[in-house]
Amino acid sequence: MGLVDDRIEELGLVLPPELQPPPGVVLPFQFVNIRDSRAIVSGHGPQALDGRVPEPFGRVGEQVTIEEAIEAARLTALSMLGSLTRALGSLDRITGWLRVFGMVNSAPGFDRQPVVINGFSDLILEVFGPEVGAHARSAVGMAALPFGIPVEVEAEVAIQ
Amino acid sequence: MGLVDDRIEELGLVLPPELQPPPGVVLPFQFVNIRDSRAIVSGHGPQALDGRVPEPFGRVGEQVTIEEAIEAARLTALSMLGSLTRALGSLDRITGWLRVFGMVNSAPGFDRQPVVINGFSDLILEVFGPEVGAHARSAVGMAALPFGIPVEVEAEVAIQ
Amino acid sequence: MGLVDDRIEELGLVLPPELQPPPGVVLPFQFVNIRDSRAIVSGHGPQALDGRVPEPFGRVGEQVTIEEAIEAARLTALSMLGSLTRALGSLDRITGWLRVFGMVNSAPGFDRQPVVINGFSDLILEVFGPEVGAHARSAVGMAALPFGIPVEVEAEVAIQ
Repeated sequence: MGLVDDRIEELGLVLPPELQPPPGVVLPFQFVNIRDSRAIVSGHGPQALDGRVPEPFGRVGEQVTIEEAIEAARLTALSMLGSLTRALGSLDRITGWLRVFGMVNSAPGFDRQPVVINGFSDLILEVFGPEVGAHARSAVGMAALPFGIPVEVEAEVAIQ
Repeated sequence: MGLVDDRIEELGLVLPPELQPPPGVVLPFQFVNIRDSRAIVSGHGPQALDGRVPEPFGRVGEQVTIEEAIEAARLTALSMLGSLTRALGSLDRITGWLRVFGMVNSAPGFDRQPVVINGFSDLILEVFGPEVGAHARSAVGMAALPFGIPVEVEAEVAIQ
Repeated sequence: MGLVDDRIEELGLVLPPELQPPPGVVLPFQFVNIRDSRAIVSGHGPQALDGRVPEPFGRVGEQVTIEEAIEAARLTALSMLGSLTRALGSLDRITGWLRVFGMVNSAPGFDRQPVVINGFSDLILEVFGPEVGAHARSAVGMAALPFGIPVEVEAEVAIQ
């Protein structure tokens, strides 16, 4: 266990196990794709601690409130940290967050995507600190997301 | 011709020629942008064998069925392999698929984007095999895509 | 000042200052994230010369005309060049445009995203020329964008 892994424990955060996709869904790709000093991270959504995709489902600003969406973005960060831990062995191998692409399942007229994706960014900065955690970001509104999840985030991190 | 190019022939796959955009449309960018060991691939959509953009048009779950969308994702993979062949000379120069960003033109409530983009992923894995073909992926729902195409995929591959 | 910076002046272009987000909005990320020879650029939208987010707001093909959207894409390019100048010191450090991801806030049925994002691409090519300015690109339709901006562009450039 490394320093960042310890920090996660200190903060009382729990990382979920590998995603249990809904019945019949095949996902023929890597959650984390490592190439030299880059780890390219597939789109992740919120996960419950049993590995499943949790409620609520739907578009933010309609079926999902902004508070629920912020929490979903936070759960998305934990899901991604779980995948990165399994792929890298330790989160201490991450030397920099490079890119965060935050996607919000958005009802027509909902335009507060940055507030939602702050739930993701704030957790990354809390865990990794202001230097390693610093990232470029977009936070944008999608017409739909898989299984009706309210938030999905794709990313890239630098590793050693 | 290399091993992967031969494999394409063995599988009976035919790669389309360069995209013929609809009349009046100017596309001032590179379909494949090579930089050192990276090939960054612009958003591609389905192509017919004459190079044009084929039917059907519209949103999946509305004007376009999921079966048609899976086929469009497969045609998108062939279109991208055509561009990569022209840019690289041979697909054998691809040493790894890094990132696949799958975009589905989605009717409200359509949430089976992963099933659609599997049409793309499955063909890549069939052609390149489970090691070189392994990729990180997102599959998400767009409000609209150029010319009304049902699927568009952006990607990055590692090259030698 | 370098050659590209001079070219901006020759063309009569003025780069806006750092973004003044709307009141109460916190943006906890880097507008440009530098890592070795890569500069990863966060999603940028149009900016007025006072740094604020300018009108018009809304979806292209509905509240925003295509002509206004092309101009918004051009203002987005100037906003990004402003951020890159502040992050890099001089735009001459850019040795290649790698990836442009153009997002258009799109009304149902609006499918001319490439025409809109040409407002961005054309300016980059005018400033950097056909070699350094060449880029891979996607131009796609979003359900919504932050603050209701009509256009947002994320990018990556190679630097020295």
